[in-house]
Order: sequence, then structure tokens, then C-alpha cells
Amino acid sequence: MNQAIGVIDSGVGGLTVVHELMRQLPKESLIYLGDTLRCPYGPRSKEDVRKFTWEMTDFLLDKQIKLLVVACNTATAFTLNELQEHLSIPVIGVIKPGARAAIKATENSHIGVIGTEGTIGSKAYNQALSGIKSDLHVNSLACPLFVPMVEQGVLSGKEAEEIVEKSLLPMKEQNHIDTLILGCTHYPLIKETIQKVIGSQVTVISSSEETAREVSTILEFHNQLYNGLDTPAHQFYTTGEMGVFAKITESIFRESAAYFQSVTIKKAVIAH
Amino acid sequence: MNQAIGVIDSGVGGLTVVHELMRQLPKESLIYLGDTLRCPYGPRSKEDVRKFTWEMTDFLLDKQIKLLVVACNTATAFTLNELQEHLSIPVIGVIKPGARAAIKATENSHIGVIGTEGTIGSKAYNQALSGIKSDLHVNSLACPLFVPMVEQGVLSGKEAEEIVEKSLLPMKEQNHIDTLILGCTHYPLIKETIQKVIGSQVTVISSSEETAREVSTILEFHNQLYNGLDTPAHQFYTTGEMGVFAKITESIFRESAAYFQSVTIKKAVIAH
Repeated sequence: MNQAIGVIDSGVGGLTVVHELMRQLPKESLIYLGDTLRCPYGPRSKEDVRKFTWEMTDFLLDKQIKLLVVACNTATAFTLNELQEHLSIPVIGVIKPGARAAIKATENSHIGVIGTEGTIGSKAYNQALSGIKSDLHVNSLACPLFVPMVEQGVLSGKEAEEIVEKSLLPMKEQNHIDTLILGCTHYPLIKETIQKVIGSQVTVISSSEETAREVSTILEFHNQLYNGLDTPAHQFYTTGEMGVFAKITESIFRESAAYFQSVTIKKAVIAH
Repeated sequence: MNQAIGVIDSGVGGLTVVHELMRQLPKESLIYLGDTLRCPYGPRSKEDVRKFTWEMTDFLLDKQIKLLVVACNTATAFTLNELQEHLSIPVIGVIKPGARAAIKATENSHIGVIGTEGTIGSKAYNQALSGIKSDLHVNSLACPLFVPMVEQGVLSGKEAEEIVEKSLLPMKEQNHIDTLILGCTHYPLIKETIQKVIGSQVTVISSSEETAREVSTILEFHNQLYNGLDTPAHQFYTTGEMGVFAKITESIFRESAAYFQSVTIKKAVIAH
């Protein structure tokens, strides 16, 4: 049986993980659930984020997924350990993969992290980084305007640049980092703008790309990579407006028409 | 208890994996065994490689390692599945990590692989690559002169360049690849020479760096990363000449004096 990989996110940001999963693991089928109705999670309480994340998880467990990706940094920061304890399938978050890639990339041991208030406030990246390597200098910064901007489809242009420029100013002024972790799966959608603002001397790490890579590692380690001949079928669910979700989805997968043809978008009604 | 990560190799090539493990996982202790006495494995029969690999594995299992890295592509190609089946600890080879990194890196789907006759003849990289993604064009080339050259300490200069230039000619003439996997853990020691010969437009993937990254992923997934405060202690064993081994080890770790101070080199007598 060709069991799917499940991916949950607070909105559309997790689609950047889906995009990388399709590229790096093109034989796998994916089921995505974006909680666009209640997005963003960043400013919400830990209890709310936990509750919503469990509701999404239960929705996907019903669909017999073989692995769960928590493609939202805020949800990862607040619930990953708990999900890993309770679920019998592997659960992968987006924080450790980004942390590991940054440790591999940095040469001067100065790493920047940007994310939502929830993610930055949780200090999850600091813990993930120092848990592996103690002598790192980590410079964290919450960028609360980025998620609403992306969810509204503002990905480039003058308005986007001004917001990014203003938000990153405190990090730019310090001017030490050689590696910057995009600690939110929405941010790869504005990666070019971020790279332009922060400067080409900084290696920008996408937690989405790195998470897809680690899904491949873990599935292969458990001998669970799909090796049949069926064409993958992808299902995308949203709790919110179908129209807005479809529009953003299309813009993300614009250059991947072949993949996009295999996707069905549905409305999700999740149990509260 | 601070259990060590075990690393085995046919000679000194696996030290490039050790170097990356020390950099990416500086809290972990390592035990290395290089079978320099019987190096190279590349031209040997599958049966010989299997026998030698099991002898090295048994030597390290006696030392209570928590994870085994088979840091030799030839040994990985011939024995990884078997070791993974029989051992109760995780066993990581060097082929899949390099394959995954190449899939992540390539943009034109043309990937080159260089390695020993044994590794290339086994088609292990072709299988690892096409197992994950079918539409790749893989161009493989055996470079039998590289390992003996490295084991003799010839890492750069005119002689090294001439050998690399001549060896890579068939791959250069095709001129399609945008990504080249160094499918032998000796090759990162001549990476600069290889990059110079193959051209800067090609992304050169070191299976050593990628393997260290995946060791981090797997240990963390099993909740086995060391999180105590003990300073790591490393033990290096060789089956061959202590003097030659120490000399090459020193040249590899030249810029990592801090790490190198924590290393003890011993002679290994392994059971036949």
C-alpha cells in the first residue's frame, strides 16, 4: 500500500515543505492540511497552538499517513515532543533540520534566526543549536509582519521590500552572522527579498528544504520509502477559504505544473 | 554513560567523516578504526570486503558504541544492508547521504559519481539515486588511482593535478553534470583539486559532510545525542603502520588542533 506523508501547517507556509518534498521525493504521495481559518499561530497562546495542532494531527491520522511533518515552526516549538511521544509513526518538525543545516554551513559560528513571536519567544532554535554545539552565537529576531504579508500574497515588490528591510534592521546592524535560518515555513516564499536585504555574504537556510531532506533520511532509515510504480496523488486540505488557498497554492507551484496537476484541493472540517 | 560513535574505514579516508562529525557534533566521542593494513578495499572481492568489514565491526561493538558509521563507500556498497539487519544499533553508510544531497542540489538532473572500482561496479549510487528519483541522468566513473595517491599523502600539487585531470577526462568530455558526488571518503582530501579540474559550475558533494549531518539526524531522532558535560575523548585505531597513519591524521586535522589534542592513536589487532 502506498501510504502518504502527512503535512500540517497553520496556513500556506507548509506548502514550501510540500514543494521540496515533491522535488526531493517525487515518488511519495502527500496529504496537506493548512489551518488557514485560524492562521497565524505565531501570536497565539501555547494552549491554543497545542489544541489546534492535535486537531490537525487527528484529521491526518484518520487518513493512515506513514509519517507526520509538523511544517509550522510555532507548532513544532510547542508540540513536537508531545506528538513524538504519543504517535506510533515518525513525527518530524522543522526546527532541528534547520538548526543542523546552519551548524553545517556556518564558518564563524554566528547564526541568525528569524521567526514568529511564538517561535522566537519559545527559544526552540537556541535550544536546538546549543544542544548540538555549545560555542555558537545565536542572534534571534521576531518578524511578526512576514506571515500576514505572505498569507495576503504579497511576496515581492516595493511593499514587501520595505517591510523586510525595516524588520531585519536590528539584525543587520549587528552585522556578525554568516548564516541566517528562516525559522518559519512562510519565509522561503520571500527568500529572495530577505537575501537581498541581508546581503549575499550570508547563507540563508530554508527550514523547508532541510526538513524535506530529513524526511527522506528518516523514511529510508525505516525502510518506508515508496518503491512501487503508482503515480503519486496529492491531496491538499484547507480549513479556510478555498479561493484564497487555491490562489496562493498556484503561485507557489507555478513552475511545477507537472506536480500541480496531481493535486486535489478540498475543504477540511476538523473536529474540535 | 557517554557512549561513542563508531566509525570504520578501509584506511584513512573515513577520517574525513570523523573531521565533519567533530565539527557538526562536537559533544560526541568517537572511536575510529582504519584498516590501513589491508587498504585499499576498492579492487578486492565482495567476499573479502564483507569479511574485513565484519571484523572491524566486531572490534568496535566490543567497545559499546551507540551507532556505527561505515565510512567507506566500498564497504557500504557490499555490506550495509547486512549490517543493518544484524546489528541492534543504527548503522549509517556513506552512499545514501551523498545521494540525497545530490538530489537536493541538482537543477538539471545530471549527476556525476566518482568512486573506486568496487563502488562504481556495484552500481550502489545509481540504485540509491533512482530509488528516490527516477528521472535522473547518472554518469559514473571509477577513479582507481585516487585512493593510493591519498594514502601516500599526495593531496595537491602538480602530480595530484595531473592524475585527477587524466582520471576525470571522460566525465569532463560529456560536460552535462551540474553536481558531482565524491563517492569515496578519501576524495574530500583532494576536493580542491577535483573542483579545479571539473570546473566551478559543478556543485561538488562530499559524502563525508553529508554523512555526518545524517548521523546527527538519526541520533537525535533516537534521542541519543550526548547532552552531558564531559569533554569528548576520541580513540583512533589502525591495523597498519602507526607512523604513516599518524602522519596522515595530522595533516587532515592540521587546522583543528583543539580537536586533535583529544585524540589517542592506538594499534588495533583485530580477530580473523
